[in-house]
Order: sequence, then C-alpha cells, then structure tokens
Amino acid sequence: MSTELRIIPITGIGEIAPGTDLGTLIYEAIQHQGLALEQGDILVITQKIVSKAEGKTVDLKDVEPSPFAQMIADNANKDARHVEVVLRESKRIVRMDHGVLISETHHGFICANAGVDESNVNGAEQLTLLPVDSDHSAREIRTRLQQLTGQETLNIALIISDTWGRPWRNGQINMAIGLAGMEALADYRGQNDPYGYELHASIIAVADELSSAAELVMGKIDRVPVALIRGYAFTPGNGDIHTLARDSSTDMFR
Amino acid sequence: MSTELRIIPITGIGEIAPGTDLGTLIYEAIQHQGLALEQGDILVITQKIVSKAEGKTVDLKDVEPSPFAQMIADNANKDARHVEVVLRESKRIVRMDHGVLISETHHGFICANAGVDESNVNGAEQLTLLPVDSDHSAREIRTRLQQLTGQETLNIALIISDTWGRPWRNGQINMAIGLAGMEALADYRGQNDPYGYELHASIIAVADELSSAAELVMGKIDRVPVALIRGYAFTPGNGDIHTLARDSSTDMFR
Repeated sequence: MSTELRIIPITGIGEIAPGTDLGTLIYEAIQHQGLALEQGDILVITQKIVSKAEGKTVDLKDVEPSPFAQMIADNANKDARHVEVVLRESKRIVRMDHGVLISETHHGFICANAGVDESNVNGAEQLTLLPVDSDHSAREIRTRLQQLTGQETLNIALIISDTWGRPWRNGQINMAIGLAGMEALADYRGQNDPYGYELHASIIAVADELSSAAELVMGKIDRVPVALIRGYAFTPGNGDIHTLARDSSTDMFR
Repeated sequence: MSTELRIIPITGIGEIAPGTDLGTLIYEAIQHQGLALEQGDILVITQKIVSKAEGKTVDLKDVEPSPFAQMIADNANKDARHVEVVLRESKRIVRMDHGVLISETHHGFICANAGVDESNVNGAEQLTLLPVDSDHSAREIRTRLQQLTGQETLNIALIISDTWGRPWRNGQINMAIGLAGMEALADYRGQNDPYGYELHASIIAVADELSSAAELVMGKIDRVPVALIRGYAFTPGNGDIHTLARDSSTDMFR
C-alpha cells in the first residue's frame, strides 16, 4: 500500500563558505524547524552548496583561456575563460553548437557545460564546478548526520542534485549527481501488474525523481538548498551514482 | 516562503474500460479517501488509464505488419505487429538501433517506441497508444472534476504523465504528456538570487518534475494510477504541452 509522501523545505541555510561542515549546518537547520531525522528520511541537497563547501569554485580572473577555448568563445559570443573551465571539466565533447557545449565530465555525466555554473561569492565573478566525487560527498554528510542524531546506523538516504536540461524537452529538471544510503534505481521487472501481465521494462530512476520532487519546494534560485522527503520507501544501499550512467553500448545519443 | 508539499496516492481505481468517465471515477476515489479537492490541488494521472478510457488500444491480432516493420522486427528479434504499430504512431524516426526505435510522434514528442506500451486487457495481447490530444483529455477530466465539486472555476491543475527513458541515463522517469489549468514551465530568469546575482538559464519544467514526484507514490506497475499533489504553487494557465517540446533549431539530438 502506498503512503503519502511529504516534501519539506529546510530553510535558514545561508551562504556557504569553503570548509563549511554541511552535515552540522543541515542538522541544526532541521532542528531549528522543530523536526528530527527519522528512519527512512531522504535529504536532497543542491550541488551548489556542496561545491561551495568543498571550495570547488574558480575565480574567472585566475583563468587563462587556451586558443581553442578562445576560438569557441569568439564563435559563440561567450566568455573564453568560462569555456576554458568547461573544457577542463570535460573528458569528451558530445555536441557543440548554438553556443552550447554538451560534454561528458570526468565523472561520466553527460550534461551542458560539464556542470559548470556561474555563481556569486561575495560579489566576485566565480564559477562553481561539480564535486570531485559526489557519492563521497553524500556519504560524508550522511555519516555526520547519523553521528549527530546519536544513531550511527540510522537508515537515512542522501542525494546531491543538480539542475540540467534535456534533449527534446524545454526546461530544466533536477537530477541526482551523488547519493548515499540508497539504490539509485528501483527495479520493477518481472513483477506482475494487477491483471497478471508481466512488464518488461520498468527500471525507475528514483534518485532522479526524488531530486525533481525536491526541486518543487526548493523553488527559485536555491533559496532553499535542502529538502527533506519523508514517506518514500527507498531501497537501502551504499549508493553509486554510476548505476545511473547509461553504458555506451546501449546509448544512441553519445 | 516555500511550504511543505504533500503527494497523496489515490487508490481504489480498478481496471478501466473504454468509455469510462475518468473525472467521475477519480472524484469518487478522492471522496472515498475522505478527501476533497481544494484550490491549488494538482492531479497527476498516468497515461495508461487515459488511453484505456479513450479506447486507444490495438489488438495485436488485428495488425498486419508492413514489409518494413517485418524487416526491423526480424533484425531485432521483436514482434513485427508491435513494430508496425510503432511506425504508425511515428512521424519520424530519430534513432533506430539495439532493437529500440526512438521516434517523434504525431504530437511532437520524442520517445522510445512512439509511446506504444504493451498492456493487458482481459487477457488479450494489446498495445496502448498515447491519447490523440492529451491536453484535450486533461481539460475534459479537469472540467468534470470542477463540475462535480460544484465550483466550476476551482483553481486546480491536471497533468497526464508517461514513463520514459532518457539518453545517457539508466532508468525511466515520469514526464508530462498533457496538462490543463497550469503552465508547464516556470520561468525564473531575471530574478536575483539572495546574493544579487542574476541567473541566466532557469526555466524549470515543473510539469515534468510534478510527474516524476507523483510516480514516487504510484509505485510499482500502475497500481496507483492517480496522485494528488497539494502545496505546490503552480502558475495558472490553459495548459499547452507543446511548450515543453524543444524547437528543432535549438535541439542538438534530433
């Protein structure tokens, strides 16, 4: 029997400085709202605050663009330093057109601009990069939250999400880029539907769906960088974001 | 200020026969749970029950495959009648490989197998097709729900969702294929973030995110074909699913 799901915005998290202990910050913000972490809770955290806490930012003034970055930027009327950072974050260019770079990051994600975002830290022109290992980041925050609750085996999950565009569809949605404590996919194959029919292709990317659900309370422009999802029966697991990366042998759009 | 969002599974909806008045069925199921529709509520309904109510099913035994369908099926070890139906539902083939057809439907959606699903109706081998005009289907159900509440101007929204794969990512997620009463996109461009920085590219496909959120309570294999989302401040509008279709001039993966 399905139960109601609640998505609760966690507020009061201000600007994040490098070195911030996000686990403690989030724990205190949850407490400040009169809540306490429970068995089965899922926290979704936007990538931007994780990257800032880990110091994964680049000052544009420190970037020296290569001739290739300069050429791309000139053709697309973009900032060559920004293009340079995108190239450094890319393992492979999947498409390059309309002033947009779709690339595969060193993590194996395929997304626009290799996940590099323009940001603002104390008025300086900065870019935020994706965390080096978002699963590791997620595990660290989850472990800290478990420690702070005094229940080091508390069954909670943690997802780090980012906002990405898609082929064929307008608008961006939130997707998972790192996770801890849960499986990213839910496998419904081989189960019978109510009429005895066996479905063939039902593997659901629940980590992505949870990320998108969380965005709905995060609202505009990261004012709410954390959401607590309560009531979803995730499958406990170590968490491996690479299970969401489609193998090149079955990918028709690489 | 963001508020908590609730996603409530609507249960007790059984098998859907052609001609079923879905609005009335859903209204009664909501009442049966002790709930009543409120201003601002969003209902997400899976495509499969809409297609069944509209009789958008095809018996495999009635399908005569063309030589082209037969050739594709032979190469991919598939049912030629199934391929034939996919071709009939397709305006254009985007990719064809690994036994998978990615095609653009007559509606302008790009998805695997033109949205054709295997289904089961009273034990017969059937395929369900997408509704001819899902926005129209959504409007009809929404209007019926408004009538039944006795508030014909009740500000509610209705989304029809389907389960689709994505390039580059494993697992399927729910996306919107029709809507009524709301805008599909939320445009955050030009708004300042808390630190005064103007974001450049923040148009969020909230209709897709709401569809994915709803899937989390629908769970396995459509046992719960309807979800009620309460607490999301959608932008009222007529609803036009084509606003989610990326224009070919900005699409690098057609």
